[in-house]
Amino acid sequence: MTKKKKSSGIIIIGNEILSGKTLETNSNFMCNKLYEVGISCSEINTIKDEEPKIIEKVNLFRKKYDYVFTSGGIGPTHDDITSASIAKAFKRKLVLNQEAKKLLEKHYSDDVLTKARLKMAYFPENAKLIDNPISIAPGFFIENLYVFPGVPRIMQTMFDEIVKSLDEGLRYYKKTISTTLSEGIIGDYIQEIQNKFPSLEIGSYPYFKKNSFGVSLVVKGDDNETVSKATSEILEYISLKNGNPQLY
Amino acid sequence: MTKKKKSSGIIIIGNEILSGKTLETNSNFMCNKLYEVGISCSEINTIKDEEPKIIEKVNLFRKKYDYVFTSGGIGPTHDDITSASIAKAFKRKLVLNQEAKKLLEKHYSDDVLTKARLKMAYFPENAKLIDNPISIAPGFFIENLYVFPGVPRIMQTMFDEIVKSLDEGLRYYKKTISTTLSEGIIGDYIQEIQNKFPSLEIGSYPYFKKNSFGVSLVVKGDDNETVSKATSEILEYISLKNGNPQLY
Repeated sequence: MTKKKKSSGIIIIGNEILSGKTLETNSNFMCNKLYEVGISCSEINTIKDEEPKIIEKVNLFRKKYDYVFTSGGIGPTHDDITSASIAKAFKRKLVLNQEAKKLLEKHYSDDVLTKARLKMAYFPENAKLIDNPISIAPGFFIENLYVFPGVPRIMQTMFDEIVKSLDEGLRYYKKTISTTLSEGIIGDYIQEIQNKFPSLEIGSYPYFKKNSFGVSLVVKGDDNETVSKATSEILEYISLKNGNPQLY
Repeated sequence: MTKKKKSSGIIIIGNEILSGKTLETNSNFMCNKLYEVGISCSEINTIKDEEPKIIEKVNLFRKKYDYVFTSGGIGPTHDDITSASIAKAFKRKLVLNQEAKKLLEKHYSDDVLTKARLKMAYFPENAKLIDNPISIAPGFFIENLYVFPGVPRIMQTMFDEIVKSLDEGLRYYKKTISTTLSEGIIGDYIQEIQNKFPSLEIGSYPYFKKNSFGVSLVVKGDDNETVSKATSEILEYISLKNGNPQLY
C-alpha cells in the first residue's frame, strides 16, 4: 500500500530576521524533524510582524499544504501580533483561554502576571493548546495550522511533541555517497544515472574539509530496492574512477 | 533630501535546505549587508529546485520589490536549474556566454572543461555577469534580479561587490589576478603594495582546483589608472616569482 506523502509549509515571523540581526534556525530544526517522519517541506517563508502579511500567508499556506507551522510573535510584547492576526485569518474572535490563564497564574505566582504576560493567554476561539514545558505560555493549533514561539529551545521542545502526533506520511529511503571527485568531473555521469532512474531524487552537494574536497551524493526514493540499485551503480563508477567512494 | 528606502526580497533555492540537511545562512548574510546600505528586506522565500516554482517566485518578486536576490542552483550538476528557469521567467533564451566560456577555459586549463562545467557559461540572453573571484563561474543579473551561487563563501564575496554597486554614488574599477603562489608566500608583498597604493582595496581569496591551489587577488579603486598601475606591478612580481599569473 502506498500512502500519499504529506506536504507542509513553514512561516517564520519576525523583523529581527529580515534585518539580519538574528540568524533563523527554527525552520532547519523543523525541516529535519519533518523529514524524519516523512513529511515533505515545500516552502519556507520569512515575513515581517505585520498583520496583513501574516493573514495573507497563513490563508495561502493552509489551503496549499497538509500542514503549516509558524514560529515567532506569540510573546508578551506589543510587536507579538501573531495570535491576533491568525484569529483574523480564520475569522475568529481572540478570546481569553481560562486554562492558559491558570497555567500562567501558577507560573508567575512569585512574580506579577502583568497585562503583557496575560496577553499570552489569548487565543483564537476554539484553538487547541500546545504544551510548553519550559516557559509555560502555550502555543496552539487550529485545523492544520500549528503555532510556535520563536525562542529556539522552547520551540524545539514543543515541536518534538507535536511532530509525534502528526499522521506519518510515506517514509523515504536514502543513501549518501561521498567521493573525492569534483562535481565538474562526475556531473555528466550523475545526469545519466538520474535519467536512468527517474523515480529517484539525486542531489549533489560539494564539501570542503581541511585537507580535501569532493562531493556528497544523496540518493532518495520511495522504493528501497531502486535506491540500492542506483547506489551500487554509482559506487562502482566512482571506484573505477579512483574517486574513493564512501557509503553513509 | 530624503531618499525613499528601497525594498528587496530574497529567494533561496535548494532541496537540501527544505530537507533540513543544510542550515541556510545566506539570507542572513544578505539581510545584514542590505540593512547596512539602507535596503529593507521584506521577505525571504526558500523553495525547491523545481522549474515552475522558480519561475513563479522570480516573476512575483521582481514585480513586488525594488531588488531581488537569489542563491543556489547555478553549479555544474543536473539539479542546477536556476539559470534555465530564470531565462524562462524572463522569456529569454538560455545562451552560451563567450566571456564566461573563456573564463572557465582558463580556470580549468589544468583539468577538463567537461560538459557539466561548461553549463556554468550558459545564461539568459543579455544577462550581465557578476564576477566570481574564487571559483570563477559567474553569477548574473537581469534588470532588478541578482543571481548568486549557494556556496556561502563564494556567494558572500560576490554579494559584497554587488551591494556596493547598488549605491548609485559608488563607481569603481576592478582587476582580478590569479596566481599559484600561496597567501603565505605573497602576503608580505601584497601588504607592501597595499601600503604603496592606500586608495586601493586589495582583496586576497584562496582557491582550490583539482591539481593546484593558489590565490585570486582583487584590486579595486575609484581611479582606473591607479588600479591598472598596481595590477601591472603585481603581475610583474608574480612573474618574477614564477607564480603563473593570470589576469581576468
